Amino acid sequence: MPLSDTPNAENPVRACVAYDRSGRRVGDIALEAISDMLALSDRFVWVGLYEPDAALLAQMQHEFGLHPLAVEDAAKAHQRPKLEAYGESLFVVARTASRSGAHVRFGETHVFMGRNYILTIRHGDSTGYATVRRNVEQTPALLAQGPGYALYAVLDAIVDGYLPIVEAYRAELEELEGEIFARQWRRGTLKRLYAMQRELTRLRLAVAPLQDVLAQLQRLPGDVMPEAMRPYFRDVNDHANRINDTVGALREMLSAAMNVSVSLVTLEQNEVVKRLAGWAALLAVPTLLTGWFGMNFRHMPELDWRWSYPALLVFTLGLCGGLYYWLKRSRWL
Amino acid sequence: MPLSDTPNAENPVRACVAYDRSGRRVGDIALEAISDMLALSDRFVWVGLYEPDAALLAQMQHEFGLHPLAVEDAAKAHQRPKLEAYGESLFVVARTASRSGAHVRFGETHVFMGRNYILTIRHGDSTGYATVRRNVEQTPALLAQGPGYALYAVLDAIVDGYLPIVEAYRAELEELEGEIFARQWRRGTLKRLYAMQRELTRLRLAVAPLQDVLAQLQRLPGDVMPEAMRPYFRDVNDHANRINDTVGALREMLSAAMNVSVSLVTLEQNEVVKRLAGWAALLAVPTLLTGWFGMNFRHMPELDWRWSYPALLVFTLGLCGGLYYWLKRSRWL
Amino acid sequence: MPLSDTPNAENPVRACVAYDRSGRRVGDIALEAISDMLALSDRFVWVGLYEPDAALLAQMQHEFGLHPLAVEDAAKAHQRPKLEAYGESLFVVARTASRSGAHVRFGETHVFMGRNYILTIRHGDSTGYATVRRNVEQTPALLAQGPGYALYAVLDAIVDGYLPIVEAYRAELEELEGEIFARQWRRGTLKRLYAMQRELTRLRLAVAPLQDVLAQLQRLPGDVMPEAMRPYFRDVNDHANRINDTVGALREMLSAAMNVSVSLVTLEQNEVVKRLAGWAALLAVPTLLTGWFGMNFRHMPELDWRWSYPALLVFTLGLCGGLYYWLKRSRWL
Amino acid sequence: MPLSDTPNAENPVRACVAYDRSGRRVGDIALEAISDMLALSDRFVWVGLYEPDAALLAQMQHEFGLHPLAVEDAAKAHQRPKLEAYGESLFVVARTASRSGAHVRFGETHVFMGRNYILTIRHGDSTGYATVRRNVEQTPALLAQGPGYALYAVLDAIVDGYLPIVEAYRAELEELEGEIFARQWRRGTLKRLYAMQRELTRLRLAVAPLQDVLAQLQRLPGDVMPEAMRPYFRDVNDHANRINDTVGALREMLSAAMNVSVSLVTLEQNEVVKRLAGWAALLAVPTLLTGWFGMNFRHMPELDWRWSYPALLVFTLGLCGGLYYWLKRSRWL
Amino acid sequence: MPLSDTPNAENPVRACVAYDRSGRRVGDIALEAISDMLALSDRFVWVGLYEPDAALLAQMQHEFGLHPLAVEDAAKAHQRPKLEAYGESLFVVARTASRSGAHVRFGETHVFMGRNYILTIRHGDSTGYATVRRNVEQTPALLAQGPGYALYAVLDAIVDGYLPIVEAYRAELEELEGEIFARQWRRGTLKRLYAMQRELTRLRLAVAPLQDVLAQLQRLPGDVMPEAMRPYFRDVNDHANRINDTVGALREMLSAAMNVSVSLVTLEQNEVVKRLAGWAALLAVPTLLTGWFGMNFRHMPELDWRWSYPALLVFTLGLCGGLYYWLKRSRWL
Repeated sequence: MPLSDTPNAENPVRACVAYDRSGRRVGDIALEAISDMLALSDRFVWVGLYEPDAALLAQMQHEFGLHPLAVEDAAKAHQRPKLEAYGESLFVVARTASRSGAHVRFGETHVFMGRNYILTIRHGDSTGYATVRRNVEQTPALLAQGPGYALYAVLDAIVDGYLPIVEAYRAELEELEGEIFARQWRRGTLKRLYAMQRELTRLRLAVAPLQDVLAQLQRLPGDVMPEAMRPYFRDVNDHANRINDTVGALREMLSAAMNVSVSLVTLEQNEVVKRLAGWAALLAVPTLLTGWFGMNFRHMPELDWRWSYPALLVFTLGLCGGLYYWLKRSRWL
Repeated sequence: MPLSDTPNAENPVRACVAYDRSGRRVGDIALEAISDMLALSDRFVWVGLYEPDAALLAQMQHEFGLHPLAVEDAAKAHQRPKLEAYGESLFVVARTASRSGAHVRFGETHVFMGRNYILTIRHGDSTGYATVRRNVEQTPALLAQGPGYALYAVLDAIVDGYLPIVEAYRAELEELEGEIFARQWRRGTLKRLYAMQRELTRLRLAVAPLQDVLAQLQRLPGDVMPEAMRPYFRDVNDHANRINDTVGALREMLSAAMNVSVSLVTLEQNEVVKRLAGWAALLAVPTLLTGWFGMNFRHMPELDWRWSYPALLVFTLGLCGGLYYWLKRSRWL
Repeated sequence: MPLSDTPNAENPVRACVAYDRSGRRVGDIALEAISDMLALSDRFVWVGLYEPDAALLAQMQHEFGLHPLAVEDAAKAHQRPKLEAYGESLFVVARTASRSGAHVRFGETHVFMGRNYILTIRHGDSTGYATVRRNVEQTPALLAQGPGYALYAVLDAIVDGYLPIVEAYRAELEELEGEIFARQWRRGTLKRLYAMQRELTRLRLAVAPLQDVLAQLQRLPGDVMPEAMRPYFRDVNDHANRINDTVGALREMLSAAMNVSVSLVTLEQNEVVKRLAGWAALLAVPTLLTGWFGMNFRHMPELDWRWSYPALLVFTLGLCGGLYYWLKRSRWL
Repeated sequence: MPLSDTPNAENPVRACVAYDRSGRRVGDIALEAISDMLALSDRFVWVGLYEPDAALLAQMQHEFGLHPLAVEDAAKAHQRPKLEAYGESLFVVARTASRSGAHVRFGETHVFMGRNYILTIRHGDSTGYATVRRNVEQTPALLAQGPGYALYAVLDAIVDGYLPIVEAYRAELEELEGEIFARQWRRGTLKRLYAMQRELTRLRLAVAPLQDVLAQLQRLPGDVMPEAMRPYFRDVNDHANRINDTVGALREMLSAAMNVSVSLVTLEQNEVVKRLAGWAALLAVPTLLTGWFGMNFRHMPELDWRWSYPALLVFTLGLCGGLYYWLKRSRWL
Repeated sequence: MPLSDTPNAENPVRACVAYDRSGRRVGDIALEAISDMLALSDRFVWVGLYEPDAALLAQMQHEFGLHPLAVEDAAKAHQRPKLEAYGESLFVVARTASRSGAHVRFGETHVFMGRNYILTIRHGDSTGYATVRRNVEQTPALLAQGPGYALYAVLDAIVDGYLPIVEAYRAELEELEGEIFARQWRRGTLKRLYAMQRELTRLRLAVAPLQDVLAQLQRLPGDVMPEAMRPYFRDVNDHANRINDTVGALREMLSAAMNVSVSLVTLEQNEVVKRLAGWAALLAVPTLLTGWFGMNFRHMPELDWRWSYPALLVFTLGLCGGLYYWLKRSRWL
């Protein structure tokens, strides 16, 4: 039963593996064999599904004895990150994020964990956990701690997946800041700032409740989660905190960048209006004078004088020159 | 005693049903028979009212032995979502919301719950609970848990009722974002943004205290609410949390959209003013020149020259052309 | 000793009544007889004062054995709503609000409560508690619970007094919203929005700490406050919560209304500037042409042609017409 | 050893007084006699210093046995308001504020308190505690409670010192509001609003942590602070809460006032632009007409008609009049 | 084995010193000798590294027996300030900040602390801890408390390192405020305000979680951290609180300064537009008149009158003068 991990693959069952007490892989097993395997006290099973249908979920519910409410949640995506304990078994929901081009695609991972099983269900865009499984299988000593370590590995991979996205946002914000202060600010800049705010809001809604989940995982009683696992979840939580901090700081700077860009436009408009006023004042002088001497009164003695025209020419140029100098000095031109 | 669930129906008593210990419907009973029924230890009663008058409420108070303060609250709508425990009986208030056209209509549901009864009272616009009753009657195994399960079913229906409204708001915001960035922004867009903010504020006031109610329901002692019910209320609370998150995110984006739209208008105005200034500068040249040569001085030798007019024509066109090119390049036109 | 409740009455002692164990009014008593009455275990006393002077307060301190710090607070208004326990006696401060015309007048009520007495002291504008007393005297069964019920009645009256004020603000905001979107927005609208924000800030400062007071009253030990009183204070607190919610929502909408009104003005200014620019462009054409043909060159052959004048007329009208159409289509006119 | 309380006095030791068990002043003592006095179980000592140098502080550390960390803090001003317990002795830091002219000057008071001593150290601008000492000495019954009452008296004086400042700000804000709405708004108004915000931020940083200090003082174990002192600290805390509330409300209104003033300027600018556009339109008519009839075409028959000039005069006046009326009605003039 | 503390030095091992029980320096030891030294109960070791490579870190992990998760964190910078307890040993991360020119450079320090060792690892720009070591070695009595005191000394140095930075920001803000109100406001001012906000956001992300770390250090059980150390960490925490307060206040004032500067530009623009309108009105009068008398009607009797030209001159000057006076008085010029 060869299992692929490509999202487009037909088979919703991506993995169904049994491990022994020392954390070593025993081998792939059939779905129907799960409940038999669970009866053996020295085995634990890791099943990975991708967007399973109702029938498959019902089978899982039967094999693992899952709570109907949790199965109902797992059937549809768009859950909020949360941790729910049903007796000794846990139900964890987390949002995954991955970057494709300029866009961030969000997915979901639901995890059922019991004393000797872990069941991961992926929805939407997300990289599979085949790499995660391969990595943990290389440290059997750690995997020997049971499904709790597998849960840690999955959550660690999810949280680490946020990091490049946050970094990309940071880089984009710096680029936009450059645009804003380089007078290249325009409609497109604003549109990108707005889009970024929307994405960051979504990211925050994914990370913030995950912090609660990770904090709760550290406080679980020892019979549900081995105490030795606590530092691991604390470590993931710390990464989540860092991402949350950065998202918060980015949101703040984003809002400051929006404000600053509007201020710069207002400032620039002020300069434009001042220039407009300055040039209007400068041009008003000759307009006034030429209008005056364009009047048709019969008795305007200066029109007949010999030197009035060159005198006016000199006077106009002098006045405009002086006005230009004065306006330039007081920053109206 | 056939009971209808249409809001316009005359009869305020929409349901009065008895169930036995195994969750099976025994049948409709008369209001007067309630207290007798309650005396039987293996029965529980579900009564549904729609905007009852004082007399009916007094009868209910008498039959169920309700606390006068709670009955007073139940008589008038406009209560805040809350949970109040009076000894072993509970009084729950929740706000309902339903969408009719472009508007959201808010209603209220008050629930009295005791060891073996549940009494739901609806006020204002809301869909009735006939469907809810029909659904739970199809799973007698769950309904066998008593009135607590009925309360869960009612609250679940209320919270699920918020979802399409939130989705509609999300869609509307996206549409408005499109308008904002497509330069089609105008008075009407702003009015809709404002109206949406008002509606979201009301929605938040309905959902946020309901989260507290649902959290309290999970912490009730086992003799008031069976412990097996806790995962159910946790599940509803989780949905309420998700709605609250989304409402919060929508409110943030709404406020960002308002800011961005004002910024875009400021930006556009800046461009208009620059264009205005650019064209004014372009036109100032010929205005100045024609004014100059319109003066009536007797001694303006250039007026008499043979080629001054065509020379001026060429000069003016050249100057304006150069100016136009320069203004275009520096984005003033 | 007839006692009036009109604020202008001279007598600061508005009531001094004794009640027996069953909550029935025994009769008015003299101030000097209070301590004797308190010595009887089956009586309790309700004294109501309006802005008492130092001497009267000292007498009260002596009769009831009040703590000097609380008496000092009671002597002057401008206290913050609070609950202070001195041994078995309580000191409660609440702010009252009443609407007179378009303005809200704030007052204060200080209450001292002990095992068998209640002393209410009113400051500033507020309706008296004569009506409250009359109401509670009609339900002796409830009043039999002692001064705690009287305290509840007073606080209930205070909180209910906020409701019409909040409703009036809601109505006023709706009216202002109408003005804002009906292009009738002006200086006065803004002034009223600002005044409303100031009043709401004051109202919040009155209501928010009162919520704490009411929550504390629910947690008092049974020997200070009978446990049967808890649902009553919870009920008042619930009303206070509702008012606080509404005040918060009003403040949010107020701030949104301010933002939106500025946006609308910016938007309108943008339209005005565009129109200004459009008309300027339209008028620039004939101005340029008439200036051109107003030049006084001797050699402008077109001036002498037979049909140049009518040709110019037609050309100008055509150009302006075309420009007008183009500007209209692109929304600059 | 006469001690003065004027800040400019040379002597940093402003008081060194011993009190007996009944709270009566025994008399001034020498600094060197402090440790001897502390050995007597029925005495307590109050020392007041003003900006002591290192040597004096070292002497105090020796006499009272103070913790080196606290002494280090006390040596320099710019500490945050805080309460630190070192075994049975307390170290309290508070900020003082006093108004001199239009400015608020901030100072600091550090208090060391032990079982039978209190040591107050003032830094910066602040009124001395001579008046406080004189007042408490007049109520020996209260002072008999030991240094705790002296600490209360000092903190009470500090908190009461904030009140006139807050009142002055309230008055100034009202004055500025008047300016804003009376169209007298200008650069200076904005500058004062900004300065006020800065001062209020500083004031908040002084008051907010002091609230924590006062709350902690109420929770101290009985052997460090007599339980009878709790109502006193509660009372001071209540005043601090009130000041904090008012500062918060002032900050809110300040921010609203800034927003409103910008809105008013935007609104006024809109009116100016509309008026500018209106007058431009009004003047465009005669400009166009006179330009037209100023053209020099030979064949413009209307120039030669007998009544064209008066007809034009009437036509222009009529057109301008009509336009004026229309613009006036649509609020563009 | 001479150890330098210059960041550019090649050797990543900056110190490796052993101390005896009385806090006296025993001498430098080789890295390989650490585990032997730790076996002696009366010694403790202080190792200081600067950006160690993986091999060195692995050696440290081996010598001190560190937890792999913590070592992984220590290998890379960009950790969030945090305190993690692994059994009896601690892992502390703090961000350091130092000012170089106009820029703030951030670094990180990771500290491992056990019963008898302390290992400090620096990353990025930061001054070394050679000075800190020299200082603590001069107070062996304090250092005798073990590695906890060394940890205190390091954290104290880090927090004190923030102070000059915060002071520099405060000075810069004052300078910018001067620019804003002195009408010298321009693009560069806004850019610096924005840059400052970004730096303050980073600083807050460094300080705020450090407060939590310091608060946790005060609550550690006595076997991990001697209780006598608590006042020391409380003292550092107090400094951190003060810095956090100041950063918060600076951020507030920064945001107010941005708002105020935009308001001032809007206000100035308003004045410019009013002036523009005023001058346009003033010039409209002669323009209108000269245009009128520039018309070429044959029958304009006033053109031929003897005194019409001087009369017009006088009339125009008078009208303009009056208009000028009126505009000046109503603040449009």
